[in-house]
Amino acid sequence: MKTVMGIDPGSIRLGFALLEVSGSGLRQHIKAKNFGIIEPGCAEFNERLGILLTELHGLFEKHKPSALSIERVFLGKNVDSVFKLGHARGLVIAIASQLGIPIFEYAAREVKKGVTGSGAADKAQVQVCVLSQLKLRPVLPSGRALPSDATDALALALHHARLLS
Amino acid sequence: MKTVMGIDPGSIRLGFALLEVSGSGLRQHIKAKNFGIIEPGCAEFNERLGILLTELHGLFEKHKPSALSIERVFLGKNVDSVFKLGHARGLVIAIASQLGIPIFEYAAREVKKGVTGSGAADKAQVQVCVLSQLKLRPVLPSGRALPSDATDALALALHHARLLS
Repeated sequence: MKTVMGIDPGSIRLGFALLEVSGSGLRQHIKAKNFGIIEPGCAEFNERLGILLTELHGLFEKHKPSALSIERVFLGKNVDSVFKLGHARGLVIAIASQLGIPIFEYAAREVKKGVTGSGAADKAQVQVCVLSQLKLRPVLPSGRALPSDATDALALALHHARLLS
Repeated sequence: MKTVMGIDPGSIRLGFALLEVSGSGLRQHIKAKNFGIIEPGCAEFNERLGILLTELHGLFEKHKPSALSIERVFLGKNVDSVFKLGHARGLVIAIASQLGIPIFEYAAREVKKGVTGSGAADKAQVQVCVLSQLKLRPVLPSGRALPSDATDALALALHHARLLS
């Protein structure tokens, strides 16, 4: 039994997913153990990073993932948002690395292709495929509607889990 | 007695400085307690972040700074280096924020003006002024020649310390 963690980092909203993976090949079984978002609220940027660090430490400690799946970012033109994303992404990678957890980086296109069959799938198609493969409804365990950051984290973890089989 | 920490973040080489500040006004006394660089070595980027996180936790724990002084970055055109810098800078800010340590961000120009009198001072001028004000020789406590990242961290901490008086 392995636990794959998927993270869609962001300083305003960070999506996470933990999938339990057992068996292999046709008998591979993947079950969503936990997923959701961390929202540091309306605090200012520096303070949000402190909250993220605390929450991420808690998540890694609770679920002890055996692998982290995270998006390989292709850098766009908005330097400011890339810089801020880097701050949040750095925390995730540093904690995984500090704990000796292997890190797997996938381009968005690879993940889409892996979970839907098409690298050009849109967000709605990704959600439908992820939910159907994991037999989930489009709500968080809390009952709240599933945010796209959590779906992206589920997709990252699912894509990695499939490659294990 | 206050301890001001200055950090010049980077994932290859991170400069740090700890200054002890006592008294105020003309009787303000500033003493370099520790300064240097953290070099995660030739490990790849993700691994370096894990090493930085561990080393930074140690530095904060050992010196218990009462304030962090860090450069406010004006974003240049190299998106890739800005993204990587963000990863390392995020760790420093997240740890300080998690520990409730106030964070002060200064533009490079402000720091140069503060420690040399001119916002257009070059690196050599900054080093001369910082070393003379802190009565230091251009070597690390280890005896190695002072790297510019450590000088920048000393300048950041010194600039903040002067504003306290």
